[in-house]
Amino acid sequence: MGLLQQTEARYRQALEALKALPIRWDRERFAFWLKQDYPFVEALYRYQVALLAEAPQAHRFPLVQALLATVEELDWLLAQGADPKAPVHPVRREYVGLLEEMAGLGYPYRLVLFYFLNRLFLEAWNAHVEGDGPWRELSEHWAAPEFQAVLFDLEVLAQGVAEGLDQEVLARYLERILEMEEKTWSLLL
Amino acid sequence: MGLLQQTEARYRQALEALKALPIRWDRERFAFWLKQDYPFVEALYRYQVALLAEAPQAHRFPLVQALLATVEELDWLLAQGADPKAPVHPVRREYVGLLEEMAGLGYPYRLVLFYFLNRLFLEAWNAHVEGDGPWRELSEHWAAPEFQAVLFDLEVLAQGVAEGLDQEVLARYLERILEMEEKTWSLLL
Repeated sequence: MGLLQQTEARYRQALEALKALPIRWDRERFAFWLKQDYPFVEALYRYQVALLAEAPQAHRFPLVQALLATVEELDWLLAQGADPKAPVHPVRREYVGLLEEMAGLGYPYRLVLFYFLNRLFLEAWNAHVEGDGPWRELSEHWAAPEFQAVLFDLEVLAQGVAEGLDQEVLARYLERILEMEEKTWSLLL
Repeated sequence: MGLLQQTEARYRQALEALKALPIRWDRERFAFWLKQDYPFVEALYRYQVALLAEAPQAHRFPLVQALLATVEELDWLLAQGADPKAPVHPVRREYVGLLEEMAGLGYPYRLVLFYFLNRLFLEAWNAHVEGDGPWRELSEHWAAPEFQAVLFDLEVLAQGVAEGLDQEVLARYLERILEMEEKTWSLLL
């Protein structure tokens, strides 16, 4: 079993707990929560640009595609009324702080963690988000074959660099990402 | 007349001289010259990533599209046999040095100069490159509506930031870009 799979197996339980959170489904609250996602996605944009600054040529195409998806997501959040100048919720601020801390890690760690972050978020999203609403566009965007291809490519890139990494370092950051995902989704409890 | 147009008018003559260079059209030499373009395009990639690190949200979509075009161009050059480890010709090295120096300018200057650099190069390319060859793919890429749309968007972004800039600073760097373009094309005299 490769290092990526071992790491995945290790966090599987925490992910299931995240997916099982009994969030109260309420259109208005969810729309508000989603708009408040802006500062986190903005921080993710910066994280991705920093990845591109170090990416070897073979990694760049999928990483640029992923960046494009993030830029489109920011546009979408703005179109929904997100306000980049609004005060940032402490939980979002903490998650932004984690991303900024991760920026200090070496390129392969940041790449693998970026892949997991996307996977984790999308699994939780698919478990929690239901019904019709403006966010259906986002769901469709992430389910589209182009974006699925980007995720697949990211997984291949992550597998390509994961073998040489210190699994404890990876696991420690993954736990913190999971913790932040749990805190973020718990805003909807 | 806007600042962008004034600046353009000022360099028009130098651009015409560049387009009139009597280059000797030889497939083999041109293919070799093009492969040697790799380190310059790599430097342009870094220049663009640094732009993205500071770009406001409204600028990001076209800049990411332009970055994608650069990544595809690097792939294309590799497919033609470009060797990233090959010694770099002094003229290319000088051009890379200019880009690195320009990286120290403020964001609006770098954005406007990036727009001009694309325009200048493509005008010279269209004036000089003829006939069939593997580079026809590149010509077609740059002539494609998607890439024309990127150029158009870059022009709009450049116009949006140009008014507040010191025209002398812009003109000085444009002259140096033109000088490097002339030196680069002159390798084919």
